Amino acid sequence: MNHEFWFKEYHSRHHGLFFRITKILFQKKSRFQQIDIVESPVFGKVLLLDGLVMTTELDEFVYHEMLVHPAMILHPEPGQILIIGGGDGGTAREVLKYNEVQRAVLCEIDEEVVKASREFLPELSTSFDDPRIELKFLDGVEFVKETKEPQFDLVFVDSSDPIGPATVLYSEEFIKNLKRTLKNGGITVFQSESPFTRLDIIKDLFDKLKHSFKFVRPYLAPIPGYPDGTWSFLFASDTDYRDKVRKSPAGLKYFNEEILKASFALPNFIKEKLND
Amino acid sequence: MNHEFWFKEYHSRHHGLFFRITKILFQKKSRFQQIDIVESPVFGKVLLLDGLVMTTELDEFVYHEMLVHPAMILHPEPGQILIIGGGDGGTAREVLKYNEVQRAVLCEIDEEVVKASREFLPELSTSFDDPRIELKFLDGVEFVKETKEPQFDLVFVDSSDPIGPATVLYSEEFIKNLKRTLKNGGITVFQSESPFTRLDIIKDLFDKLKHSFKFVRPYLAPIPGYPDGTWSFLFASDTDYRDKVRKSPAGLKYFNEEILKASFALPNFIKEKLND
Repeated sequence: MNHEFWFKEYHSRHHGLFFRITKILFQKKSRFQQIDIVESPVFGKVLLLDGLVMTTELDEFVYHEMLVHPAMILHPEPGQILIIGGGDGGTAREVLKYNEVQRAVLCEIDEEVVKASREFLPELSTSFDDPRIELKFLDGVEFVKETKEPQFDLVFVDSSDPIGPATVLYSEEFIKNLKRTLKNGGITVFQSESPFTRLDIIKDLFDKLKHSFKFVRPYLAPIPGYPDGTWSFLFASDTDYRDKVRKSPAGLKYFNEEILKASFALPNFIKEKLND
Repeated sequence: MNHEFWFKEYHSRHHGLFFRITKILFQKKSRFQQIDIVESPVFGKVLLLDGLVMTTELDEFVYHEMLVHPAMILHPEPGQILIIGGGDGGTAREVLKYNEVQRAVLCEIDEEVVKASREFLPELSTSFDDPRIELKFLDGVEFVKETKEPQFDLVFVDSSDPIGPATVLYSEEFIKNLKRTLKNGGITVFQSESPFTRLDIIKDLFDKLKHSFKFVRPYLAPIPGYPDGTWSFLFASDTDYRDKVRKSPAGLKYFNEEILKASFALPNFIKEKLND
């Protein structure tokens, strides 16, 4: 053998991640984006959208548990859930671990992502067979615009980066419409980029959320497959949730109650930037 | 221009980090290792030993603050400090921020690292001009073996990875000799690898430290330039330190007292591995 397959993702024009590929399991150009699923030795199966790492077997548990469980265990009655994006199914899987959840609407613009995940990422997508799931292949922006009355306790924005198709999910208008779909006491959580090299993007989204919500709290989690290996999330609500009201489900690989508290502790350089 | 300079570090045979280089500031093969200092757009100046990223301008504050400040603010009287490795000066810089420190012995095997840092990394190495610093160009293993009586309050093991010249710093014998140099109530902190892909190494060092110390507590920090972007440290002592006794110095970029507590919160997958 004198050949090798490698994947490279540029996290900026100047740095990035590379990993070896052993197999390309799936490739399709959908109406919205290029979808690839590859197999690799360290990261396991990896879902790429437009060539960017969305989820990997090595660390998907961190991302999905951390997007979902903080809001789930802080909200007093998380019965009605909306997920925007999340076509791989990982976020829905975590949401559905709670018996309190009666209905989880998953609004994914690209049906092909769901199909590919059903076939190649069953660890993530089995959640789609739960009767509480309502799959909608719609633009999240349109969905929150059309949803006139408050009906969700939690809205998770599990989108790709604010470049390409997901840019609109980082707009003031989207946030306002999203807020209108939340019941009293509702919470929204956005995934929100690397604090080391994209702190401006976090700051921008933080400020926009602040215009609509009384409390916006960033939190952090380590995700090796994402730029710089550390990711941020923004937790926004009009209620100042601090004390957990429920236990997290058994069998989680990352999240626990010490982690809940710890993940909201911010390094000085992030605090300073956000309070600017 | 149709040429570009790039650096690649393999974090395993299968994955790694790459970044653009704009200048090679320094290159030397010392008696112990290949030393390079390069300039890059995202990471700034980067010190490489045997081709591995040791410290970068982007994230050195996280590494050095997190190696040093937890033990410094928990120990009641950190007057006498030993640093093993740390030839770039960053660890010494953080240690010397405390007036309580009377003497800091820096035991670096490779004088050429110190010389290179003095010339090209003044932000790290100005600490070498502090009169409290005692530079010793010795093997840390020999130094702790020869140091018969307890004399240090804190020992920081700021070594390279447990492959190559630093392997001996991960041995049971080294840990025993190191412990003998600690006064009553003393603490040692080891830098200890990525929890995502090198958890076996952490577990091994954790177990070895457990043989010599009553309390061994791992803690974590995000470091984009290191494998997988998240690093671990092992904090070991015979005293169960939990409550801070002093304020951290003003002007830190990463560390604060919420971070102190937060960094010791461990994800389930790490807890499970260490309790195995």
